[in-house]
Amino acid sequence: MVCGRISRLSVRDVRFPTSLGSHGSDAMQLFQTISLLLPPVLHLQQLEDVAYCIPKKTEDKCTLGPISHISLQTNPLLFYSRLMQKMDSRGTELPSLWEKALKLIGPEKGAVHLATAAILNAVWDLWAKQEGKPLWKLLVDMDPRMLLSCIDFRYITDVLTEEEAYEILQKGQVGKKEREGQMLTHGYPAYTTSCAWLGYSDDTLKQLCTQALKDGWTRFKVKVGADLQDDIRRCRLIRNIIGPEKILMMDANQRWDVPEAVEWMSSLAEFKPLWIEEPTSPDDILGHATISKALVPLGIGVATGEQCHNRVIFKQLLQAQALQFLQIDSCRLGSVNENLSVLLMAKKFEIPVCPHAGGVGLCELVQHLIIFDFISVSASLENRMCEYVDHLHEHFKYPVIIKNASYMPPQDAGYSTEMKAGSVKKHQYPDGEVWKKLLAAQGN
Amino acid sequence: MVCGRISRLSVRDVRFPTSLGSHGSDAMQLFQTISLLLPPVLHLQQLEDVAYCIPKKTEDKCTLGPISHISLQTNPLLFYSRLMQKMDSRGTELPSLWEKALKLIGPEKGAVHLATAAILNAVWDLWAKQEGKPLWKLLVDMDPRMLLSCIDFRYITDVLTEEEAYEILQKGQVGKKEREGQMLTHGYPAYTTSCAWLGYSDDTLKQLCTQALKDGWTRFKVKVGADLQDDIRRCRLIRNIIGPEKILMMDANQRWDVPEAVEWMSSLAEFKPLWIEEPTSPDDILGHATISKALVPLGIGVATGEQCHNRVIFKQLLQAQALQFLQIDSCRLGSVNENLSVLLMAKKFEIPVCPHAGGVGLCELVQHLIIFDFISVSASLENRMCEYVDHLHEHFKYPVIIKNASYMPPQDAGYSTEMKAGSVKKHQYPDGEVWKKLLAAQGN
Repeated sequence: MVCGRISRLSVRDVRFPTSLGSHGSDAMQLFQTISLLLPPVLHLQQLEDVAYCIPKKTEDKCTLGPISHISLQTNPLLFYSRLMQKMDSRGTELPSLWEKALKLIGPEKGAVHLATAAILNAVWDLWAKQEGKPLWKLLVDMDPRMLLSCIDFRYITDVLTEEEAYEILQKGQVGKKEREGQMLTHGYPAYTTSCAWLGYSDDTLKQLCTQALKDGWTRFKVKVGADLQDDIRRCRLIRNIIGPEKILMMDANQRWDVPEAVEWMSSLAEFKPLWIEEPTSPDDILGHATISKALVPLGIGVATGEQCHNRVIFKQLLQAQALQFLQIDSCRLGSVNENLSVLLMAKKFEIPVCPHAGGVGLCELVQHLIIFDFISVSASLENRMCEYVDHLHEHFKYPVIIKNASYMPPQDAGYSTEMKAGSVKKHQYPDGEVWKKLLAAQGN
Repeated sequence: MVCGRISRLSVRDVRFPTSLGSHGSDAMQLFQTISLLLPPVLHLQQLEDVAYCIPKKTEDKCTLGPISHISLQTNPLLFYSRLMQKMDSRGTELPSLWEKALKLIGPEKGAVHLATAAILNAVWDLWAKQEGKPLWKLLVDMDPRMLLSCIDFRYITDVLTEEEAYEILQKGQVGKKEREGQMLTHGYPAYTTSCAWLGYSDDTLKQLCTQALKDGWTRFKVKVGADLQDDIRRCRLIRNIIGPEKILMMDANQRWDVPEAVEWMSSLAEFKPLWIEEPTSPDDILGHATISKALVPLGIGVATGEQCHNRVIFKQLLQAQALQFLQIDSCRLGSVNENLSVLLMAKKFEIPVCPHAGGVGLCELVQHLIIFDFISVSASLENRMCEYVDHLHEHFKYPVIIKNASYMPPQDAGYSTEMKAGSVKKHQYPDGEVWKKLLAAQGN
């Protein structure tokens, strides 16, 4: 139970100049110059907690106003439902900009949804800390009815009712203890995206792949989609280094139209990719279904989800058999709450969840969700793994621990969202030390 | 051709306290207290022009920075493609927040997409003024190839290629002159939403319907979805007043889950609605398809689109036979550019376009698009009409002209986007005269 009243919320603009080394480059952003991280700091009673979202520029009256009136009396559901379900309470005669914004700049997508998710991530972190547990353990120990009370079933009851979700969670109770033990001993399997960003030279790629193999990695992702001949060369290079048995995934970062995706991937089929990720627009459910239908016979699955903006899109991707691997994101969906609904729908359709991570702190957060998923929902590791990108962890108070290419379950209380104060200070844009130097060098 | 360089862009927060009279109330927003209008004012050379978008709070460096570097040398395409296609130019070593925002807070949805649309609306207004024509006429007279150069075909080539679009426009040349004459004489048919907002009393409803009939209206829309018994009473009341021959539409404003929508509308079928609008989440393409399949046999079509965030969603609604009436919105899609692609796709699928309007200034803008659609694309009025809401027109420099329940084609140059300076000043939030008084009365 989280108790308290939100007294203050502040937002900081924190950025990392990762592109100076082409880290993070892909077919849509060859020079991914800055990673953005803007943590809203939530002041609740005496506690202080950090989570994040993608850009909101400064402290904003839209969010501060209504949020400061919300008391947290039970669990994040109350908070969630008031924020996400368009602030349904009709008490005031002049409702806030926030309320309008939720409906009009969206609904349930874009900046407002992302900002809401960030605030809710902070609330979940706080709740886990108040219980003295890491978030995954808070979820694993939670009574199924309580868990379900955190889910907004609006718009998904045609594929998942609350009763069906309850049955899934009840079945998940069987063998839970053993699976928790398994996680604590072996961790959750990961794959690496750090070896093959699009902007890396062949030499860098070779060197990083060779090193990753030595470090025990068995699953690798390569960025594709900018130039077919380049892709063929790079995929051949990687396949030769890792050998025929290791797993290779490809990621096009939304680069193609539907027919183009099918054609391009047919040319890369010889390198035996497990999946093609984000072949086209993340909004194109029917497009992904068409691509799946064409590629599954070639042994290639479709993976997507990191930019799917809400549970309604995931629902349809499952209904349309548009994906073979479902990639949740801890900061794009409406926090833990909305991710819970997607994990349960994926279980119903028996589609493996392979979370998106990387970015800044995404690994830290999403490991909690996927470890919970294994212990309490999916009960399977078949065809499942969580993305891992080896950068920026040093800025977090509770960084991920990777052993034998697996995420080891976090032991510290909370949702692993907190950044180190020194890192935040140094990387604040534009006044932090790092940016002052870089901007001065640019003559800006 | 628009020539110039953008020197300044400013945004104002303008609101109207429409809910004081329950105008605009629906099943999701019973007290729609404020209408929002935030016009970015674009300063281009010596010209000044106004368009709008849904909330962006204040002048913002994200937009100001990169935009001020853009020269407009040919047509809005250059501007459009740079803004919408994720600012593909890779000149700078520290790309702007805007560029990241386009990809990350979206893509092509939410605040950034809406803000981009607003800026583009201003550019189109400017272009039409430089040509000395109302926007609809600029479009009608434009060479088909030039028109096509304004469209981003990314992600839609699986249903509409540039060549197919060209053929549609070429066919549209036949009889164009006659249709232009027809528009100038008779105007484009409209329907009214002003009689039956959800918050109106039965007496108000009776009185407004009776008056609207006297004024020549033959097509009426009623808000439904909050309470079935209320809906039955109100629909019976309206049907009795307007008689069995007049057209009645219903609008649920996203209130229902999929099975609920089918059940609820089956109960309202006796009142012979032409369509049910926004029965569920605007993201739920497959849900709309299920609802359509169930309701079309009852003689009820499905209408949606006012909150469809981009052409990819419209593409799928058409592919899935998920709607029988397609409702474009002049401010949600990426301006004229993205609307052109949707009009052409609708034509290919032979689905009538019945634009969303109302709000603040939406009628003023969208009339240009639908008049162009009739003259150059659809060449048909069958099952077609444009929404009309009778409020807030007095704040515009070039307000719509309605005659015999039809939109008469605007004659002034531009896109009818400009507000009166006095109205902007008075309704600025929170310092305009209107808000100062209201907020003082609230003791705020």
